[in-house]
Amino acid sequence: MRLFRKLSPLLALPIMGITSPALASDAVGVHGIYILNSLLFLIGGFLVMFMAAGFCMLEAGLVRAKNTTTQLTKNIALFSLAAVGYYLIGYNLMYPLGSWAVDGLFSSLFPAIAVLEPVGVGADGVDDLSYASTASDYFFQLMFCAATASIVSGAVAERIKLWPFLIFTLVLTAFIYPLQASWKWGGGFLDAAGFLDFAGSSVVHSVGGWAALAGVLILGPRLGKYKDGRTVPMPGANLPLATLGTFILWLGWFGFNGGSQLAMGTIGDVADVSRIFANTNAAAAGGAISALILTQLVYGKVDLTMVLNGALAGLVSITAEPLTPSLGMATLIGGVGGLIVVFAVPLLDKFKIDDVVGAIPVHLIAGIWGTLAVCLTNDDASFSTQIYGIAVIGIFTFIASSIIWYILAKTIGIRVSEEDEILGLDNSELGMESYPEFQR
Amino acid sequence: MRLFRKLSPLLALPIMGITSPALASDAVGVHGIYILNSLLFLIGGFLVMFMAAGFCMLEAGLVRAKNTTTQLTKNIALFSLAAVGYYLIGYNLMYPLGSWAVDGLFSSLFPAIAVLEPVGVGADGVDDLSYASTASDYFFQLMFCAATASIVSGAVAERIKLWPFLIFTLVLTAFIYPLQASWKWGGGFLDAAGFLDFAGSSVVHSVGGWAALAGVLILGPRLGKYKDGRTVPMPGANLPLATLGTFILWLGWFGFNGGSQLAMGTIGDVADVSRIFANTNAAAAGGAISALILTQLVYGKVDLTMVLNGALAGLVSITAEPLTPSLGMATLIGGVGGLIVVFAVPLLDKFKIDDVVGAIPVHLIAGIWGTLAVCLTNDDASFSTQIYGIAVIGIFTFIASSIIWYILAKTIGIRVSEEDEILGLDNSELGMESYPEFQR
Amino acid sequence: MRLFRKLSPLLALPIMGITSPALASDAVGVHGIYILNSLLFLIGGFLVMFMAAGFCMLEAGLVRAKNTTTQLTKNIALFSLAAVGYYLIGYNLMYPLGSWAVDGLFSSLFPAIAVLEPVGVGADGVDDLSYASTASDYFFQLMFCAATASIVSGAVAERIKLWPFLIFTLVLTAFIYPLQASWKWGGGFLDAAGFLDFAGSSVVHSVGGWAALAGVLILGPRLGKYKDGRTVPMPGANLPLATLGTFILWLGWFGFNGGSQLAMGTIGDVADVSRIFANTNAAAAGGAISALILTQLVYGKVDLTMVLNGALAGLVSITAEPLTPSLGMATLIGGVGGLIVVFAVPLLDKFKIDDVVGAIPVHLIAGIWGTLAVCLTNDDASFSTQIYGIAVIGIFTFIASSIIWYILAKTIGIRVSEEDEILGLDNSELGMESYPEFQR
Repeated sequence: MRLFRKLSPLLALPIMGITSPALASDAVGVHGIYILNSLLFLIGGFLVMFMAAGFCMLEAGLVRAKNTTTQLTKNIALFSLAAVGYYLIGYNLMYPLGSWAVDGLFSSLFPAIAVLEPVGVGADGVDDLSYASTASDYFFQLMFCAATASIVSGAVAERIKLWPFLIFTLVLTAFIYPLQASWKWGGGFLDAAGFLDFAGSSVVHSVGGWAALAGVLILGPRLGKYKDGRTVPMPGANLPLATLGTFILWLGWFGFNGGSQLAMGTIGDVADVSRIFANTNAAAAGGAISALILTQLVYGKVDLTMVLNGALAGLVSITAEPLTPSLGMATLIGGVGGLIVVFAVPLLDKFKIDDVVGAIPVHLIAGIWGTLAVCLTNDDASFSTQIYGIAVIGIFTFIASSIIWYILAKTIGIRVSEEDEILGLDNSELGMESYPEFQR
Repeated sequence: MRLFRKLSPLLALPIMGITSPALASDAVGVHGIYILNSLLFLIGGFLVMFMAAGFCMLEAGLVRAKNTTTQLTKNIALFSLAAVGYYLIGYNLMYPLGSWAVDGLFSSLFPAIAVLEPVGVGADGVDDLSYASTASDYFFQLMFCAATASIVSGAVAERIKLWPFLIFTLVLTAFIYPLQASWKWGGGFLDAAGFLDFAGSSVVHSVGGWAALAGVLILGPRLGKYKDGRTVPMPGANLPLATLGTFILWLGWFGFNGGSQLAMGTIGDVADVSRIFANTNAAAAGGAISALILTQLVYGKVDLTMVLNGALAGLVSITAEPLTPSLGMATLIGGVGGLIVVFAVPLLDKFKIDDVVGAIPVHLIAGIWGTLAVCLTNDDASFSTQIYGIAVIGIFTFIASSIIWYILAKTIGIRVSEEDEILGLDNSELGMESYPEFQR
Repeated sequence: MRLFRKLSPLLALPIMGITSPALASDAVGVHGIYILNSLLFLIGGFLVMFMAAGFCMLEAGLVRAKNTTTQLTKNIALFSLAAVGYYLIGYNLMYPLGSWAVDGLFSSLFPAIAVLEPVGVGADGVDDLSYASTASDYFFQLMFCAATASIVSGAVAERIKLWPFLIFTLVLTAFIYPLQASWKWGGGFLDAAGFLDFAGSSVVHSVGGWAALAGVLILGPRLGKYKDGRTVPMPGANLPLATLGTFILWLGWFGFNGGSQLAMGTIGDVADVSRIFANTNAAAAGGAISALILTQLVYGKVDLTMVLNGALAGLVSITAEPLTPSLGMATLIGGVGGLIVVFAVPLLDKFKIDDVVGAIPVHLIAGIWGTLAVCLTNDDASFSTQIYGIAVIGIFTFIASSIIWYILAKTIGIRVSEEDEILGLDNSELGMESYPEFQR
């Protein structure tokens, strides 16, 4: 997101495209801008919400059948818990410009400012007439927080216990994500330093990736994954689901990047949202194509899971700057994302970092690439500042996540027993099979 | 929906947020309001349309493999038949303010008023300039009618014959749903009595639930479901599909509840739609989390199907009043929905009421709860009036549905033979397997 | 699409609904129209984008398990390649009114005009203030091009090599589709002749169908499909996926047809978009119901795959004219589409034309029917001109496609070996199974 949430109305006016007096009468009035901006958040928000289904299907398709129910459960539970963590703590940590903005119910616990405008609010009751309804902003921002948590669940699959994972999710969505996000999108020091991350290659995707990496390192690889120096393939049980998940994520990304324009009430804003849609699609295509060609060249056969992750890496790569690139440049930026996947997946295996769905290459490494790629097309970007932002966010998230994972590991334990892992988490953790009639 | 369809333009003006003369010049003009309201119906409508896919996947995932093709067929067929039943009869029954509003083709059969505005209608040709295009309203309302029918199909699964079910669907969508909906949303006596049901906890969900309950009682349980005082588990064949269906329904519900604001052309309306989106999500999360925690506490293990139904029950619970609650209250209202699922599912089994997918707890019982919960946050609500509305709708729907199911049972029969049920409906009813290569 | 892309602003003014001076002050201003039109393209575009997932699931569900990974790979790859082919060549071929409109990156190769408006463009920098942002138009048009390619992949499934198919896709999206589309939507000779095809029954669907037919004829049927004068059924491996795909396509079609109105900034335009949504749904329902009833009558049992294809054929049938029909007429037009499916599928088998998913009946034959059906409700349509357009597009596409398929067949070969076909393409082409744990 280019701007952080609370723009002073005065500051915002010149951006609203009504600076030219001659054209002012043709422009959309202030109510119209407020309505259209809110609508952008609602559309963007429901598209990003649907990404939860995308992550869920992607991961359910890439784990083995014996762990599928657990993966499904984790995904719907994390999305639900994010709604609570972000509501109670996260949103306020991220945008600490006023005092705590929690609503009625908890007003006895927290000094209360209503998050949501009163029902049927009038123009005079609105917080910032040049922006959008607070509830629409909250809805949109929540979905970004939830997406961050979704990234983690795939990497740590097939050997993590359910409840410790969910506790980590709560901490991630209530504290870790919002705190670092405030440094950029809450108008904090990274924003002041000139760090650029339009829709979150770093703020969302690398954060999910760092949290996942910390978890994977502390968990260790799945039993039998690395044997005698070899990586043992553990193919996913349902590739149509994984492909569906990828398409759903691709769809949701239009909301993710497009909504991060934060406005569509002027010609300039709607044209920018349109550029972002077109570039986002181009980058996804670039990532898929480069993985398609590279796996053919490197392995002699196209690898569908690489192509899927290539598309996703293309999407992550364009997320830090989906606005300024040309379509060709967006395709190339995404294409590098696909290349990253093809080379990083086996590299991680070499280091015995067992990331079940490829979340670390896709979200962390391509996220870093995307954050650097801002410099290719945005003249306001400084390479050193981008490095600085990547490092600050990475170090903080990795350390904070490691501490939480470590505490969980040393107290309630985060890994299932060997026997349970071999038998499958669906049996040990849930007692419910995903495909009771199909398994061998 | 707060207001019924045909507001007098004069009555509507004060709601349009342009009462303050000082701000009137900034407000969106009447054309803009008409356009934005219509757009809300189109977006809301396509989201609710997609709920048909959600119901279909949920049900296809929760039945056994041998009955899956039949379940898929029922879902696409009922959605299609609803389009005909509601078009020919239902829409006019529901909004009987004018004479019959069917369009050109059937003008010789019915005294015709065009449902749809003429192509390229101008401002002077529009029915109600303060509302929205009739076609957008029709599209949106049709999807609610179809959703009601979708609720029924899951409960009666795995032993009902295809065609009697489809005949019931036609009667439900052409007569039962629209008639009772007119009492509230058509400006009928329940609306006049002050009964409140914003988006249909009662008008849609409990109606689907009552119709399902009537069917289930007349059909009887599946063979072998209750044996020697025990309930025999009959696990669904494909839990990823069921989870996908739940996420799709969750997504669609933003259209369901948000679109029921019926307007987004003013600051107040778009802020209200935003509140509704945020609250709807909070309630779903609350329902999922309460089922997550309760199944862990009660059964010692998390039960994914309960969590899925918990999210859906949370959504149903908030549907009667998604606007006035705070986010915290919405989470709690949804949470009670999750609790209902966890306790009502085994309770129904105790009474040998065999509801294959849990539609009765989710849509009927949580629907009643949601209709009562209006009183928690909406000062206009009267507890006794809510009870009155619930009872009137329930008694009518249950009796009407029972009569239809009974007639069908006594004439063409509604239940397949024992042999066919054991072999599976896909074999006996359709001769087509859903997973021909996977089944044991 | 009614109008081709580049309307002269002067020409467009009377259409904008602000001709009546008395109402002009209530109308949305020119900026508002530009914003709303662009928004229509963005919403329509992401809905049509999601159709790629719909085609993918439909096809993945209808092929056998041993060919599923290949089908998934083809679908995500073709969608990605379409983005490149249409970007580099296709969009310019289709709208050749200016000089080549490729953006920055390739400006050294092509005489460049930026496709996309500059970032934050003002009213004075916009190409056509009465239309929409170029990027939104590009995004929307690209999705139509990609849909054309998706149609082909299902028909030629289960025996085509991956790479030749992808090369064909590139030629189709870069040259064949855009060239013929320019004749109508680029303001070419078919448009001048009065040929009507609102959203592409011919320009998109029949083109996909002709290209598929050419491929199927040159490929020949699958091994063992026609034996001793009988057609051997080769049932799809996963009917829930096929059903999901159908619902996704149904959803996407609202964007496909609704977005083709190309405008929603006036009362007339938004009311027309609403009519189109309602009619599109009615036609899909009509197609599903007629296939439901006909398969019951003809075969004695309902055939789910026919019902799914019936719904899709209904959608294709209404695509050439979704605006002018009444709801009843739209239902009937769609119903004929369902009838076409039920009778054309066995007919093609009689001619040993092996179309794995029924793409030729659905997209080609129902596409022709839909193009002719324009004459039923649109007074501007001439039957002979519709025939002329169908023939021109058909002959061109069939010959051009045949040449490309033939060249590919004679050079690198398009069909896998018999052994590979029996073993399954997933094994021979990709070395990756879709359901490694479920197959027999």
